[in-house]
Amino acid sequence: MATAGKVIKCRAAVAWEPNKPLVMEEIEVAPPGAHEIRIKVVATGLCHTDLYHLFESKKKEGFPAVLGHEGAGIVESVGPGVTKFKPGDKVIPLFISQCGECKFCRNPKTNLCEKGWSNERYDVMSDDMSSFTCKGKTILQFMGTSTFSEYTVVNEIAVAKIHDSAPLDKVCLLGCGISTGYGAAVNTAKVEPGSTCAVFGLGAVGLAAVMGCKAAGASRIIAVDINSDKFEKAKVFGATDFVNPTELSKPVSQVLAEMTNGGVDFALECVGNVGVMRSALESCTKGWGVSVLVGWTDMYDFSARPIQLITGRTWKGSLFGGFKSKDGVPKLVDEYMAQKLKLDDFITHTMPLHQINDAIELMKHGKCIRTILNVCPE
Amino acid sequence: MATAGKVIKCRAAVAWEPNKPLVMEEIEVAPPGAHEIRIKVVATGLCHTDLYHLFESKKKEGFPAVLGHEGAGIVESVGPGVTKFKPGDKVIPLFISQCGECKFCRNPKTNLCEKGWSNERYDVMSDDMSSFTCKGKTILQFMGTSTFSEYTVVNEIAVAKIHDSAPLDKVCLLGCGISTGYGAAVNTAKVEPGSTCAVFGLGAVGLAAVMGCKAAGASRIIAVDINSDKFEKAKVFGATDFVNPTELSKPVSQVLAEMTNGGVDFALECVGNVGVMRSALESCTKGWGVSVLVGWTDMYDFSARPIQLITGRTWKGSLFGGFKSKDGVPKLVDEYMAQKLKLDDFITHTMPLHQINDAIELMKHGKCIRTILNVCPE
Repeated sequence: MATAGKVIKCRAAVAWEPNKPLVMEEIEVAPPGAHEIRIKVVATGLCHTDLYHLFESKKKEGFPAVLGHEGAGIVESVGPGVTKFKPGDKVIPLFISQCGECKFCRNPKTNLCEKGWSNERYDVMSDDMSSFTCKGKTILQFMGTSTFSEYTVVNEIAVAKIHDSAPLDKVCLLGCGISTGYGAAVNTAKVEPGSTCAVFGLGAVGLAAVMGCKAAGASRIIAVDINSDKFEKAKVFGATDFVNPTELSKPVSQVLAEMTNGGVDFALECVGNVGVMRSALESCTKGWGVSVLVGWTDMYDFSARPIQLITGRTWKGSLFGGFKSKDGVPKLVDEYMAQKLKLDDFITHTMPLHQINDAIELMKHGKCIRTILNVCPE
Repeated sequence: MATAGKVIKCRAAVAWEPNKPLVMEEIEVAPPGAHEIRIKVVATGLCHTDLYHLFESKKKEGFPAVLGHEGAGIVESVGPGVTKFKPGDKVIPLFISQCGECKFCRNPKTNLCEKGWSNERYDVMSDDMSSFTCKGKTILQFMGTSTFSEYTVVNEIAVAKIHDSAPLDKVCLLGCGISTGYGAAVNTAKVEPGSTCAVFGLGAVGLAAVMGCKAAGASRIIAVDINSDKFEKAKVFGATDFVNPTELSKPVSQVLAEMTNGGVDFALECVGNVGVMRSALESCTKGWGVSVLVGWTDMYDFSARPIQLITGRTWKGSLFGGFKSKDGVPKLVDEYMAQKLKLDDFITHTMPLHQINDAIELMKHGKCIRTILNVCPE
């Protein structure tokens, strides 16, 4: 391409500081270095984790940054040493890398990778390397991806090559939320056929967890949210029962125990709230209940009484649904294309990137499931 | 026997109130009712959980009581409906029952039982039924067993029949501590061959956990205790490394991570302290580390940061080592008799029941591992 080897000037939504609207800016994107890939972003979702960084964690050392980690695009050019990607390939940038060589990649029990930004910088949630500058300043790449930009540069260990005919404005959702919730049910909780499940929080991640419980053969899926408007959508994905904790006179864990003769087999926390994490654990049955933390927060401790675990409950956590990223995402794309996985039902709004602050407002007020932002035309 | 069907008057150590020495009293023990077994207690261990009830939980509704739940004895008589036990059988009373019929007993994932005292009364730690009176008052049966008495009455679902030639003054330890620690490693943590383990707390439960890690094939077993005098004994059971947190200038979890290139595969908390529970979890490696709560406490919350689980650690708990009690204990007795399991090495003191307050003092000051109290002659 004509741009290969050159700095690209393009449009990006820059988060200059916490708690402020994003600003559409012209940024400079460096050519890919060794083992790097420069990607033209076609579409991206907006995820709660972007909002968490902007409004809640308020870590000043994580700014200025380009947010966005749920995108899909097309390879523009590749750096030295990249042999498995070529310009024109359809790809999904990954916030969890898979180098294939480290002790984590070689162990089937985990999808962590020693070489990714998250290994050292999860607190700041960005790589200490960046290919972006704007007005003379380095702009950080949030979660190593930064999909709220027309172009981004990602190490090849954090890029999944996907099917040539995949619709990028749909499969971008597999870059985070849907894989996270779906995999938390099937990979981390290992939901069993005939089991009873509870999913706390019915955003995209929670709905995807409902979908995962259904796919794993759960016979009863209790959807829990403080916003009853979400129940209709949860039904689409397979939820069978609906509980709004604000409408109860008893703790939700007690209500779930009464509904299920002692508690659910699997409970997934898809909110990122330590109080809900406790409720989810306490909603599980003694003996074998498994509760999984899926929602992201790192500002407070989660807690419970020891008796909860001593009587046989297990507390786990899930990151990107337990999928090894480069291996897992192309398969999930194929499953979507074979109509085994729903994606379209998560999308409630579509708008161009420059309207991103409107998308943020929708999400802040619980008015959307997923908004797709169109970035560059294919 | 001449005593069958009659009230037996015998000696027992009564805990009249929290925080006071036990008092040797003459108590009345009722004949066994339907499906009950009256047992002549031959020997009993003293366990931290007895001390916890007496000195820490201070639940007044749990007194007066006869403590003791780590005993072995001989069937004196059986009540109506008991067909699988007869006078003269050697038995171990069980603080976890196994009715064989409830949803827990029918599920291989758990050793809980719906019919035991612990299902409803774990907070008081005693059955609401008792066969004991003293000075006109009902005396509660702590953990349903009450082995600090010459005679006790236990439901047949909470009695294990063991080998006729088992030495009761040794195998009594399988009634709690040794099974608890050993099983936590082999059944709950499922320690893997070649793995690295850490055991926090080197009382009898912790030492048994070390023995379990060794039996499961762990290649490195790090013993952690604030009392370095315990390390010599830990070595006997298979510990390979020894860490005293009071001698460190850094958190123990950081030291263990440095010793093991990122953290241990399995960490067992055998203290019953919520701070140690957190350290044990944080000592585990990302990706697949499993931490198990084995020590008993129910007064405080345990807690950690969500990232600890989200990055792949699992938090579990273990009660009686995960062994289904009636099935598991006779097998453990057989393993001891086949010299596959150590018991003698846990015993540091032996004394008659009436010296029990001396045994309590030894344990309070960490001067013993297990004291065996001889109750009745065989």
